[in-house]
Amino acid sequence: MNQHYPSKSRQTLSKRTPMRLSKQQNYQVAAIETMCHNAGQILISLLSYKALSTTDLQENFLMNQTFNVAKLAKIYANKSAHDILKLAFHQFGDGLWVSFSGAEDVVLIDIAWKLNKNVKVFSLDTGRLYPETYQFIEQVREFYKIDIELISPDHVKLEPFIKEKGLFSFYKDRHDECCGIRKIEPLRRKLSGVSAWVTGQRSDQSPSTRSKVAALEVDANFSTPKRTLYKFNPLIQMASEEAWNYIRMLELPYNSLHKRGFISIGCEPCTRPVLPNQHEREGRWWWEEDTHKECGLHTRNIISKE
Amino acid sequence: MNQHYPSKSRQTLSKRTPMRLSKQQNYQVAAIETMCHNAGQILISLLSYKALSTTDLQENFLMNQTFNVAKLAKIYANKSAHDILKLAFHQFGDGLWVSFSGAEDVVLIDIAWKLNKNVKVFSLDTGRLYPETYQFIEQVREFYKIDIELISPDHVKLEPFIKEKGLFSFYKDRHDECCGIRKIEPLRRKLSGVSAWVTGQRSDQSPSTRSKVAALEVDANFSTPKRTLYKFNPLIQMASEEAWNYIRMLELPYNSLHKRGFISIGCEPCTRPVLPNQHEREGRWWWEEDTHKECGLHTRNIISKE
Amino acid sequence: MNQHYPSKSRQTLSKRTPMRLSKQQNYQVAAIETMCHNAGQILISLLSYKALSTTDLQENFLMNQTFNVAKLAKIYANKSAHDILKLAFHQFGDGLWVSFSGAEDVVLIDIAWKLNKNVKVFSLDTGRLYPETYQFIEQVREFYKIDIELISPDHVKLEPFIKEKGLFSFYKDRHDECCGIRKIEPLRRKLSGVSAWVTGQRSDQSPSTRSKVAALEVDANFSTPKRTLYKFNPLIQMASEEAWNYIRMLELPYNSLHKRGFISIGCEPCTRPVLPNQHEREGRWWWEEDTHKECGLHTRNIISKE
Amino acid sequence: MNQHYPSKSRQTLSKRTPMRLSKQQNYQVAAIETMCHNAGQILISLLSYKALSTTDLQENFLMNQTFNVAKLAKIYANKSAHDILKLAFHQFGDGLWVSFSGAEDVVLIDIAWKLNKNVKVFSLDTGRLYPETYQFIEQVREFYKIDIELISPDHVKLEPFIKEKGLFSFYKDRHDECCGIRKIEPLRRKLSGVSAWVTGQRSDQSPSTRSKVAALEVDANFSTPKRTLYKFNPLIQMASEEAWNYIRMLELPYNSLHKRGFISIGCEPCTRPVLPNQHEREGRWWWEEDTHKECGLHTRNIISKE
Repeated sequence: MNQHYPSKSRQTLSKRTPMRLSKQQNYQVAAIETMCHNAGQILISLLSYKALSTTDLQENFLMNQTFNVAKLAKIYANKSAHDILKLAFHQFGDGLWVSFSGAEDVVLIDIAWKLNKNVKVFSLDTGRLYPETYQFIEQVREFYKIDIELISPDHVKLEPFIKEKGLFSFYKDRHDECCGIRKIEPLRRKLSGVSAWVTGQRSDQSPSTRSKVAALEVDANFSTPKRTLYKFNPLIQMASEEAWNYIRMLELPYNSLHKRGFISIGCEPCTRPVLPNQHEREGRWWWEEDTHKECGLHTRNIISKE
Repeated sequence: MNQHYPSKSRQTLSKRTPMRLSKQQNYQVAAIETMCHNAGQILISLLSYKALSTTDLQENFLMNQTFNVAKLAKIYANKSAHDILKLAFHQFGDGLWVSFSGAEDVVLIDIAWKLNKNVKVFSLDTGRLYPETYQFIEQVREFYKIDIELISPDHVKLEPFIKEKGLFSFYKDRHDECCGIRKIEPLRRKLSGVSAWVTGQRSDQSPSTRSKVAALEVDANFSTPKRTLYKFNPLIQMASEEAWNYIRMLELPYNSLHKRGFISIGCEPCTRPVLPNQHEREGRWWWEEDTHKECGLHTRNIISKE
Repeated sequence: MNQHYPSKSRQTLSKRTPMRLSKQQNYQVAAIETMCHNAGQILISLLSYKALSTTDLQENFLMNQTFNVAKLAKIYANKSAHDILKLAFHQFGDGLWVSFSGAEDVVLIDIAWKLNKNVKVFSLDTGRLYPETYQFIEQVREFYKIDIELISPDHVKLEPFIKEKGLFSFYKDRHDECCGIRKIEPLRRKLSGVSAWVTGQRSDQSPSTRSKVAALEVDANFSTPKRTLYKFNPLIQMASEEAWNYIRMLELPYNSLHKRGFISIGCEPCTRPVLPNQHEREGRWWWEEDTHKECGLHTRNIISKE
Repeated sequence: MNQHYPSKSRQTLSKRTPMRLSKQQNYQVAAIETMCHNAGQILISLLSYKALSTTDLQENFLMNQTFNVAKLAKIYANKSAHDILKLAFHQFGDGLWVSFSGAEDVVLIDIAWKLNKNVKVFSLDTGRLYPETYQFIEQVREFYKIDIELISPDHVKLEPFIKEKGLFSFYKDRHDECCGIRKIEPLRRKLSGVSAWVTGQRSDQSPSTRSKVAALEVDANFSTPKRTLYKFNPLIQMASEEAWNYIRMLELPYNSLHKRGFISIGCEPCTRPVLPNQHEREGRWWWEEDTHKECGLHTRNIISKE
């Protein structure tokens, strides 16, 4: 199975990617070796991509069992993103959808695409994303030659909300109502036809809400009485530094906002750059005092902690 | 009838409006006198706002006649924006809707609001507007204490379009398809329940397509066999310079993009700043060679020329 | 004499110049024809560049006379920039220096360079220019393969001024003192070794101070009892619109600030973008109320008016 | 001795400082407690500012001894910035000058100013700093009500360099020549009249060149045969994270570039923002491959390693 990036988009990339990255490859490999000595095992497994055809007796054994989430979560707790995604594809095949936020979770797409060139990806287009994010989503689409479904809010719900409260009500009465209309409801619509989805959440993004998230789980927010939805979190053990080493070493495209002080990236009015050494979560919904910052996609993270 | 801006929003404005404008008022009045000597009559009528209660026998006579568009268009061809809007309110009352693009057509809202504090306003939220435009729409909403309806695209039409063609197909095969889904279809939906609407189009915005537009007309694009839709264009005779003199002299809020070289303002990927002395229309859909740049809201402008 | 731009820098340009200009050349020629019908004669003469070798009996006759500034100023009052520069080179040869502000006066360099590939150019580097201006000066240097002398302030005068008053004293007590140290004194130093200089001032830049400036004059500011300094103002009759048509039609490099709403460009803290239809001079020293905005390079413009 | 910030500038600050910092103080103290558990001792000593009047028998004993740099360097190797600066002021009084780069070394000024309200500060104004840096230097000047000397290059050396090589020669033949003229020569001029100076260098800024720098040393670069110059490096043991915790907790002013992805800040053409998790030194002179990035102020750092 061909694991190289499509040749045409590769050309596109080399035009777009800052030259410095390619020139400094040797230097960066050295830098990564120094920086990641603690995280070495994870990184090594990330970099040793094996396509789906690779047989692994133990894993196959697990996969062929009944899909026991609790048991698998335990087994996969310390496995690599690659292994978790492999399990997900094996189990759900074409029923698996990868969500993409337009930030450093491009790492997720890269690993998934190397496992399955026909990987299905969707993003939530809230209608308030940064122009740079739309550009980046398109860049990823062209780079991997994949479709990316953009899920939009329902105008029937959006229009009366804006008419009544205006375009920035979240600054006054929290972001929940706006996220509900622009993200959660469209996501629910999308997931209603999906067997399993993959998120890019990492535990270091939000220590207070994401530290105990499992590698795979039953999605308690979006499952229905009639249908169980499974959720995979392959990056949950990956540190921000690892994700960025991955992006830079493999010269993946990235959102240009990351060159302007942004770490976490969401809607334009609800995202801002952070200062050096400031935690990325302080760049989101900063007018809200609490420390449980989730837009509702992963609400259960909050509930299950309480 | 109270013609003053709401006191609270006036405070808001004075915080937001650059101080230089208020400091230079005397200077600017002088500058305007010098610059506008040719346009004086129009400006004078614009500034002598009279509320609807003002009786004007001749006008009342005209308005009480059957609504003869062709005849009125001739009579109002050289009348002021104020007079044209007055006619529109008189004829259609609460059935009249003012469209607002988030640019210097704030002039239209200002004149309309002074005639009718309950003026109804809508904007087309394509989902790709500049962040600055969303901020400006909110600022206008707060400044005049009016509702502004934001009309959004139908996700059922938008999603398959983006999935198939990506987020920037207009750069390859023209803007018509995207404008069709993000602007025309939502506008048609909105106008289906409307008797008459008001646009901010001016003939100097696009000499090739807007030079012969009338002050009022039957809307040939959005009328249906069952229902005639009327369209008013009160600014059609107003030059860009006059609109800006109006904004600066009355210290109206304006889109902050205008401080960064933007004149005409539309969707983010389809709008760019222009160079000094470059025509504002060169900042829109610049990759398309032709000179008939309309998004479809005013298509008949093109057709009627051909 | 070769009138083409150096081939190498031409390549550089084509990389740097926005593609739209080159693609739209036909369109723009048409646009210019429409826009400039009144200014046609001047434009035609600008575009019909003849090198110095061209003989023109009448002009040669004039030039060979004693250099009678008053008489020549009258004769050249309505001549083109090309003709005025030709006179200047003829009369002063290598003693002539062209000043360059890093804005649209690149037109001056273009015309001068076509007359004399060894044209001498200097700019005043106040130490507070925009990064974009430094980039543009370098771009011009490479485009024409010419030296550009950058004249810097004397640290012996600058340091005690900043120590005492800080870096932004001009906002409190006017720009004269800062301009005196950063522009006037270095200019005086430069001009002390010069016979004649060329400025890019245009009368429409500042109607109150530049409307009566002659095409050539004795420089009353910088001449000394022992030495008469001559000053040429070849663009004095050129409108802003003409300068920009020239830049766009010939695809000259331009300061990228012009794509962000800047017209007149000076020091960073003393220059800001202007709104649509706002006069370019309102983008300079805007906190000072008076209408005689000159940095001192052309002080006599003010004095001679009073 | 009054240790509070001047009341007027305090007001200025509260207008300028983003509100979020002051609102989140409680949260941040908690965050710092969590993050800094390893660095606690240093932080505690930083925060327990004692004015010079505080007597400390052991220290006084040391200070009154002959000024034995090697011995003191050993004793102060693990002391706080506050203690090192206290030693410096005690030993050199008014002969001590603090250098300020316009970045997070505002921490140095804050500690020094609390020890001595008449602290002498200088910055190197290369003439190519970011506009934001000039603004920040002024803000610091007003915040602490201190003079800040800006040292400028000598135009006699600068002008021929620029005339010959243009404004960006460092991209072709390294930054040394430009730094030599714009930073080193002016610094040498300044230091020639100085007994001892204080730098803000930290070992984590540049592991390859700054890891073995002492808390105080004889300045091997700028001492002369006739005169020994001493150099103090009070922040050498302070991590970037500590410096930023200090700035945010005490709500010090900071360079607004830090909100746009910049960590290390130098001249405009030689500084760029870095990506998340990228080392700050990769934002400086990035076109040069080597890992010994110093502008020459601290050259001995490099030499002494070799």
